[in-house]
Formats: sequence, structure tokens, C-alpha cells
Amino acid sequence: MATPTLALVLDLIRTSGPISRVELAAHSGLTPATITNTVRELLAGGLVRETGRRPVAVGSPRRLLDLAPDAWYAVGVQLSRSTITTVVTDFTGRRLVSAQSPGVGDGTVQATLTTLAAHVEHLLASAAVPRKRVLGLGLVTHGPQDRERGMILTAQPTPAWQRFPLSTTLNELLSLPVLLENDATAAAISEQWTGALGVGTFGVVWVSGSGIGGGVVLNGEAFGGPIANPVEIGHVPLDPSSTLCACGNRGCAEVTAGPAAVVAQAVADPLQQGRLRLSGRPEDTLNDFERLAVAADRGDRWALALLRTSADRLADAVVTLMNLFDLDTVVLSGPAMVTAGPLYAEAATRAAERGALARLLRPVKILLSPDAATAAAVGGALVVLRSPLAHAEPPAVPEKNVSPLTT
Amino acid sequence: MATPTLALVLDLIRTSGPISRVELAAHSGLTPATITNTVRELLAGGLVRETGRRPVAVGSPRRLLDLAPDAWYAVGVQLSRSTITTVVTDFTGRRLVSAQSPGVGDGTVQATLTTLAAHVEHLLASAAVPRKRVLGLGLVTHGPQDRERGMILTAQPTPAWQRFPLSTTLNELLSLPVLLENDATAAAISEQWTGALGVGTFGVVWVSGSGIGGGVVLNGEAFGGPIANPVEIGHVPLDPSSTLCACGNRGCAEVTAGPAAVVAQAVADPLQQGRLRLSGRPEDTLNDFERLAVAADRGDRWALALLRTSADRLADAVVTLMNLFDLDTVVLSGPAMVTAGPLYAEAATRAAERGALARLLRPVKILLSPDAATAAAVGGALVVLRSPLAHAEPPAVPEKNVSPLTT
Repeated sequence: MATPTLALVLDLIRTSGPISRVELAAHSGLTPATITNTVRELLAGGLVRETGRRPVAVGSPRRLLDLAPDAWYAVGVQLSRSTITTVVTDFTGRRLVSAQSPGVGDGTVQATLTTLAAHVEHLLASAAVPRKRVLGLGLVTHGPQDRERGMILTAQPTPAWQRFPLSTTLNELLSLPVLLENDATAAAISEQWTGALGVGTFGVVWVSGSGIGGGVVLNGEAFGGPIANPVEIGHVPLDPSSTLCACGNRGCAEVTAGPAAVVAQAVADPLQQGRLRLSGRPEDTLNDFERLAVAADRGDRWALALLRTSADRLADAVVTLMNLFDLDTVVLSGPAMVTAGPLYAEAATRAAERGALARLLRPVKILLSPDAATAAAVGGALVVLRSPLAHAEPPAVPEKNVSPLTT
Repeated sequence: MATPTLALVLDLIRTSGPISRVELAAHSGLTPATITNTVRELLAGGLVRETGRRPVAVGSPRRLLDLAPDAWYAVGVQLSRSTITTVVTDFTGRRLVSAQSPGVGDGTVQATLTTLAAHVEHLLASAAVPRKRVLGLGLVTHGPQDRERGMILTAQPTPAWQRFPLSTTLNELLSLPVLLENDATAAAISEQWTGALGVGTFGVVWVSGSGIGGGVVLNGEAFGGPIANPVEIGHVPLDPSSTLCACGNRGCAEVTAGPAAVVAQAVADPLQQGRLRLSGRPEDTLNDFERLAVAADRGDRWALALLRTSADRLADAVVTLMNLFDLDTVVLSGPAMVTAGPLYAEAATRAAERGALARLLRPVKILLSPDAATAAAVGGALVVLRSPLAHAEPPAVPEKNVSPLTT
């Protein structure tokens, strides 16, 4: 069976299951014969199972198909300066366990990855997941990346990370395939998979402690870009009078609107730093930003003014994304949006209703991710589960290992 | 035969012909059997012809296929405030005649379109093209558009043009199908068809007298956008301290870097306006800009400084396009780039080498269109010739009408 066909059918079952063969043919545009053959192969391989029947007006009830949750498992890791978020999901993308650990410190990259690998082994053990069925690890970081070589291309979070062979090292430590993905693209894949948006075409602006990224899904497919680093919405010049960014441009959203910029402005005033109990250390950016967001939420005018300026600048980036990709829907996601999200969404909505050209044809929508903190890590696991790696037949495992998860 | 297959094969022959069936299968990814059947249908319909044989190392020579130039003809019209450019092309996209006429004046839209229709009839007659084989007219304007309804959505060039039924009116005047397309996208299609770039993935920034547009070609396909108005690079906020644009955003490339903005700055100084003999009337924007470009080219420091500021701002837009679509190649095109092009390309190259993220993986290239003035009009004709309209069998025409073109 052709890989694209298998992948398409598996993805449709993942996002729309339980689903009948008739619906699969209708949604995929594939012929009934191709669906029959593909589903037969998926059932035989243990990737899909029949989960019941749905009565129809005329004829016999339709048998419904769903992914076999225990066919494969995957690990998703979202790495940043502030926090490392790790999830383990089953084949359907459902999160079994998740954990936050301290972000990338000043130690060597090798030491950070060794600690991370131990953490992953611990999580896998606590989820009682059969190790043989762990398909791989999706490593999610800021861009730009060299995905083929599994490297970050810039000197962030620290210069030691630039062009360090991340995927190869983690692969050796864990004996698992490691796929590198952009954080915002992973978040977009996660949004698409949950299907909560109800649309197949949208953008994601991802705001984490370490930066701002973008992802675009067009007709259900993440826009991958011809090279490797699409939708770098955090790195487009938005203000010629502003600061130079490490990327080479002036006034990028990341240096004008990103959490690190907001926190830097706040701690520049020692009085405010003390009053709002901000650490100001790079590894505490997300915590500090969260404190500011909580203060703003409670009516602190100084914090509110600071966040509003940042939100207006991020809104410019949102409109840029909409006008270049012709989008009417953008989701704000990322750990920095957990508390500050509504304030940023409000500013982006104002800007989109004023300047997004899609408004001339349709209503425009700015939404908040329901899973802002961990969407990218879950997306990392989904990248692995949606890859051709998952088309192999899962190995047999002793019954007792599987039982904690199938109950 | 499925329309996408026919379209794919026709397009491959258009861009790569003369080409053999073996090469068609290799380039398209279609099976040899599908190629054989499709080509048989195209030969029988008179859309394609055999044009000779190419010897190969082993076996019989391969018969070569090319489009039948006289199968269909198309008209391309690029409309702007300054100029209307009209071309007639044969089925291969080769320009038979082209003409410039005065741009959109202050008369009614109906009057402008009536004059345009008469002009088109005149051009078709002078090209001695059999009227029955004129497939349609591709009307190319700035965006945003409602392509389905054939309308411009903004109050440019004048308020009377907003939501006026352009396609329907021209269709009634000429009894020809009229397809509306974005100017920059049309220019991108034209660049892709000439194949001179040698790459299938690139961006186009289109600078005309009336504005700035963007087009993106990904793997040989123009990025069409999920709604109708992709890559509006002239309308993204690039400078929060700058002027408000009609689109709703502040500091768009169009109001900070576009020819109209440059000319407005120049004529704001009566001394310079007189010295450089600038008209300052909206319909003369392109001429005035051209005068400034010629002056700068001859070493006029004042004009040079003005253009350099504009070029630096347009360079920001170029980098934005590259970083969102993950591009390493951008072509500058449009009538405003005929003389000023090298200066703008130089600024964009500097900005791209400093801030385009693709540079971290590959060399970045900013190129000038070899056909900057008329690329969009030719693209308009190509939109018609590449549409499913062209899959019909061309009607028979008396031999004498065809002869002037087949010699």
C-alpha cells in the first residue's frame, strides 16, 4: 500500500474516528475499493480496530473504525530555556502522562540531554507503556532548525546549542527514533488533531518563554515550507526604529513583543521588579511573565500597560500572518498565553478586524488554544505517530504489560 | 480524462516542451500508461502536436511533443491607475502583440471598460487571431479581490471600482470568459512559465504605479490561498510610527515604500518637483517614479536618497515574505522595477543576507524579472490558458485566417 494513502486514512481515523468505511471514502476522495484494501491492511497490522456499528436508514449498519490506542506510543518533548514539557501519548494522540521539568540551564548540552533521557525513561515507566511499542520521540524546539540533521541553527537558548546534534544524541541515549519539529508547527498539528476549531485552515502564533513562532495548517496539512523553516512570524521586521534581533532583523515580534522583552522592560525598573517580585534571570522568563500577567489580570495598571504594548505589537504579527497566508482564523497558543491569553487575543482581534484582508470576505476569528501550555509537546508526539514509522506492524507484547492501559 | 491530469501534462509541455513521453512520465510522476492515454487525447483534440524526434543511446528515437501554438489564444490585461497593459498570446503563452494604454482615469468604470473592450478587439484584429479560438481574457488587478464574483474589494484605484462587477461587464462587452487574478500572482505564474529561474519555488514582489503585491510559487504551483487573497505583502504592518494605509494597517510597504509614497515625498518639495519635472497627478505616478529612478541612476543624490529609503523598507517586506514562506529566492517585478530595479534588488539582497532565515541553510537570491513591465499581463493570459477552459477541442477555422500566425 502506498505510504501517502495509509497516512491519509490513518489521519482521518485519528481526527474523525469512530468512522465508517463509507465516510472514509467520502472524506478522503479515495475509491471505496482503495478504502477497503487499506482498512484491511490496517486491521491486519493491528493499527486499527472495529469499535461497533452505526445504524443507517437503509441497509445494514455500518461498522465503525478507530485507531487501536495501544498499537504504538510516542514521546513528545518541548524544549525551552524556561521549561521542558514532556508527554507520552497513545496511538490516538491521547496524553497518558505529562510533566514539566526545569528548562535548559547553563550546563553542557550533553548533560541536559542525559537528564532529559532519564526523565523520559522514568515517564515511560510510570505510564506502564510497553517499551517495544514506543515508536519514537518528537523533539520540539524554536526555529530555525536543520530538521534533516536534527539541529537548531541559532545560538539560542545558549551558543552551545547552535548546531549541536540533538536528534542523534537523544537517539543514542534512548535507542528511539527522534524527529525534530518546530514548536509552533507542532502546536498547529495538535490543534488540527483535536478538531475543536471546526476548520481545516488556520494559523497558530506560539508564544513561549523563549520566543514567538508561527504555524499554518492549510486544508488539514501543516505548511512545511520548501526548506525547513516556514512561518517564522517571530522573526519578521515589524519596527525599523526598534531593537536589532539575533536573527538579523530589526524590530522582530520576538524582541518587541515576546515575553523576554516584556520581562526585560519590567526589571529595568528596580522598584517594579521588587514590587512584582520578578527574578529577571533568563531561565525564569516564563515565571516572571506569568507574574506580570497575573498582576495585570488583578488590575495592576503598570503591568497592564506593559502587556498591552506587547499585545499590540504581537497583533501586528498576527495580521501579517493572516495577510500573507490569506487566513481568517488564528489560534494563540504557548505557555505564555495561559494567563495573558485573553488580553493578547483581544488586541489581536481588534487588529484583525481593522487590518486583516480576509475580513472583506468573511468574519475573522482569533482564538485561544484550550491546551496552550502543552500543545507543542503533544504535537511532537503526533509528528512521530503520523510519520511512516507508524505504518509497521506493532510487535507483540506480553498481555500483563498492556493491561493497565487498556482498562 | 481527469482534469488535473490533463492540466498537469499540458503545463509540463508548456514549461518543458519539446518533451518526450518518457520525460513526461518522469517529471509528472504519472504512469507511462496514463501519459500515453493523456497524450493520445491531447493529440486527437489538437492541443498538442509532435514536433520531431530525439535520438537516444539505446532504442528508437523518442518522439517529441509540444503545444499546438494555434490551438487557443488568450488575452491578458493588467489594469492600474497609471497604465493598462494588454497582451495577446498563443497557446504556448508566447506574446503575439502587446500594448500600453492610459490607465484608469476619473471617468465611470463602465466607460473605462467599454474603451478597454474596443482596444482588445483592435489588438485581436491586428494580431490576425481567429476570434473563435480566443479562449478568454485574464484580468489582472491589485488585491484584495473577490475572484469568484470578479470584483476588487477596496476603493482603489477610485471608490467607483470597489465591488464593481468587472468580470461580468467585460464578459458582456467581449463575449469572452473573463477570469480575475491578482497582479503579483499573475507575475509569479509568468516567471514560473518562462522557467528562466531554474527553480520551482520562489516569491515575487510586484511593484506597480498603484501598489505592491506578492506572489508565491511552491513546487511549480502558485499559492492560491484558502480564501482569495494570499501574499498581500504590500499590506502588512511594517512600521508602527508610520502612516495609516487604506487597508487598515499602519506602515504598510505600500504607504511607506510604494512608488506613490516616493512620488508624494518628492512633490511635497516644490523646488524638487520643478527641478525633476514631476507631474504629481495620481495617474502619472508611474511616469513620475520613472523620472526619479532615471535621475537617481544618473547620480542625482536627492533622488537617490529618496529611492534608497523606499528600497530599504521594501527590503523589509521581502524578508518578511521569505521568512513566512521559507523562501530562498525572490523576484522583483512590475513596471516600477524597470529602471529602479537594480537599486531595489541591491537593498533587498543586503536585507536578505542579513535577515532571511533561509540563509542559514542555503544561499539567498534576489533577482529582477526580465519582463518586469508586462509579466503580470502575460500571467493573466496564462491563467486562462492553464484553466480547464483550454481542455476543450479547438473549433475548426478557415485556413487563411490561421496562416499569418503559423508561418
